Amino acid sequence: MEASIITVGDEILIGQIVDTNSAWMGQQLNAIGIDVREILSVGDRHEEIIRALNEVCTLTDIVLITGGLGPTDDDLTIAALADFLGVGLYFDAPTYERIKSYFERLGRPISDAHKAQCYLPETVEILKNKMGTAPGMLFRHKNKIIISMPGVPYEMKYLMEHEVLPFLQSNFVSDIIIHKTIMTAGEGESVLAEMIAPIVKSFPPHLKMAYLPALGMVRLRITAKGKHEISLRQEVLQYAEEITAHVGDAVFGYDDVALEQVIRDLCIKKALTLSTAESCTGGAIAARLTTIAGSSEYFKGSIIAYSNQIKELLLNVPGNILTAHGAVSETTVKAMASGVLKVINTDLAVAVSGIAGPDGGSPEKPVGTIWVAIANSTITEATLIRAGKDRLKNIEYTVNIALNLLRKFIEKHY
Amino acid sequence: MEASIITVGDEILIGQIVDTNSAWMGQQLNAIGIDVREILSVGDRHEEIIRALNEVCTLTDIVLITGGLGPTDDDLTIAALADFLGVGLYFDAPTYERIKSYFERLGRPISDAHKAQCYLPETVEILKNKMGTAPGMLFRHKNKIIISMPGVPYEMKYLMEHEVLPFLQSNFVSDIIIHKTIMTAGEGESVLAEMIAPIVKSFPPHLKMAYLPALGMVRLRITAKGKHEISLRQEVLQYAEEITAHVGDAVFGYDDVALEQVIRDLCIKKALTLSTAESCTGGAIAARLTTIAGSSEYFKGSIIAYSNQIKELLLNVPGNILTAHGAVSETTVKAMASGVLKVINTDLAVAVSGIAGPDGGSPEKPVGTIWVAIANSTITEATLIRAGKDRLKNIEYTVNIALNLLRKFIEKHY
Repeated sequence: MEASIITVGDEILIGQIVDTNSAWMGQQLNAIGIDVREILSVGDRHEEIIRALNEVCTLTDIVLITGGLGPTDDDLTIAALADFLGVGLYFDAPTYERIKSYFERLGRPISDAHKAQCYLPETVEILKNKMGTAPGMLFRHKNKIIISMPGVPYEMKYLMEHEVLPFLQSNFVSDIIIHKTIMTAGEGESVLAEMIAPIVKSFPPHLKMAYLPALGMVRLRITAKGKHEISLRQEVLQYAEEITAHVGDAVFGYDDVALEQVIRDLCIKKALTLSTAESCTGGAIAARLTTIAGSSEYFKGSIIAYSNQIKELLLNVPGNILTAHGAVSETTVKAMASGVLKVINTDLAVAVSGIAGPDGGSPEKPVGTIWVAIANSTITEATLIRAGKDRLKNIEYTVNIALNLLRKFIEKHY
Repeated sequence: MEASIITVGDEILIGQIVDTNSAWMGQQLNAIGIDVREILSVGDRHEEIIRALNEVCTLTDIVLITGGLGPTDDDLTIAALADFLGVGLYFDAPTYERIKSYFERLGRPISDAHKAQCYLPETVEILKNKMGTAPGMLFRHKNKIIISMPGVPYEMKYLMEHEVLPFLQSNFVSDIIIHKTIMTAGEGESVLAEMIAPIVKSFPPHLKMAYLPALGMVRLRITAKGKHEISLRQEVLQYAEEITAHVGDAVFGYDDVALEQVIRDLCIKKALTLSTAESCTGGAIAARLTTIAGSSEYFKGSIIAYSNQIKELLLNVPGNILTAHGAVSETTVKAMASGVLKVINTDLAVAVSGIAGPDGGSPEKPVGTIWVAIANSTITEATLIRAGKDRLKNIEYTVNIALNLLRKFIEKHY
């Protein structure tokens, strides 16, 4: 079964916003076994919306349309839908009551503009939007299903999860789709692909493998399609285990878990505390760790030592090491790690020192030369990263590599 | 003049990637006065690409198509273009030489797959891609201009900036478009709109104002369209100055400058050094400041004091203040700021302490209660932020607000 997506809004065409709705909807539809045939973005114009509806109705039996449902003059989807369907508008009293009580909760009266949102095409089946004023609408028209949702992401997501996906699944989906994602870090896509090629070649035809690379990480996603959920799940799990065994410790988890979540869980489980000492990442490792709720249970703090003076003063890196080896060196980064370990008094420490770029490189230490150290009270391990020339990418890449080295350090030594 | 955009790739339809190319292209085309009529995303299938080309050629005279130009079997745009145009393929020797020397620089031989990238439609006009192997291609077909580019963002952007936009501008654009963006922070969209309503109402019809909000910031973009560049520029500048005078110190710069750039420039100009003491932002302020090249000239370091112990130990926040007022309080955040100022020995310090969420709130201090302090050796100013419930948004919002308070502090006191 195939679907098309129409997104309505001038703000998409002029690039004021990136259309993230379509990608999310594509993922969700794909996960229940509905393929997206086309995504079409058009502006806030009556005739453009009708043209888009006419076009995609020649392609697929399911059409999802988002946007253009707000209370202002440039919201034209309802009128366009009515014209496309060849029906009139009526005043929907339940929608009026819903919007009125929505505003009562906010302590405001309903405006005329919002009253106008209650005029709906006569053949509508209403999908209840509990997140905002605009209605979700379903139409059955000449053997097509047309579903209209607001463009506000959390309203659209609410309607998709509570109304649209259950409806589509029970009416149109015969095959069951099962995904399993293996999260890896530290190995490139082509190395991983070569490692697991024999396993992927042995996949039965109803299983597929996708490689999804990011900076320093690759997600391996197995997708199975079939009739029997239990046997599909077993099959996918078996292959995931086989791949994990082949790939080894590059695997850090499953199903879109983040490295920083894995680290939080490992540290809390093993009762370990953590600090960081950062130079070129400028606090980005600490910031990533603390995006996760509950990180205060194990993460104690950091010293961001951007200048050499602070490396000496706060991390107790000996001045003669800095003079002899430079700030970007194995010796310095190890001294930074053991320094912060003692100063903040934690079980584990991560330290980073490098040249993020675009300037500051030299022939021996070009831009992208970055040292990472992981330490506990008895062991300190340092790793050299050779990154590229782009400052922001280098920082993000280093954060991912450092978090992965920390994860492997904990798994190895505790 | 209108253009359409086609993006080719299964990864877009299944939501594996968000199509950010179209938004960027829409912005760039808009900036030179070309409106985007439609954005169409289709999968990696020969007949789908041809169908998309046929469709958009009925709509606009300019068609930009990205993706499907790689060296693998699922890259089908060249074959589809040739069939759509009704022409054959030929081996383009200069493209072969370009790709060969590209690989020579990388120290690798050219593969058969990359040789296949040298077969191009006979009517092609080549646009030189200096960032990768896939060619940029321009076709003149039945009064239409069709331009094909790789989907890799930096290759597409290179071709747009160096080949496509100059070509379109000199051939299709009669009106000149001038933009001026006024960057503001600390005031909401509706407050700003009310402040400058009389000025915007006095705009002549060829000037337009757009409000582009982000967390804690709003960009005000004036766009002028006309024939005479010098007078348009003067007019836009005049209105920008008038708006700046009305809005006051919420304006921090022009034309998409970042707050962290403004701060770097201010600090370097006034020879000021900076440190941060961060609790709930976990290093995100330091990380933002150090995304800017050259930040080591003024930014010395930070103490990320996630635990109260570290606030006492490294920032010298008196234990009785923490006991009496709690970590999230005006007194504590002020003590953190003056603490880091002394410890790292800088002219200026920023400190933050708050409850980022989702847990940790109380009736008196709900999630989103965040204190920011800015200090120098004689003055310490604290501000209370009341943010929302979303941890990541709260952190980003706090970073923007703190940077803006720092900017205003420098402008006021130096």
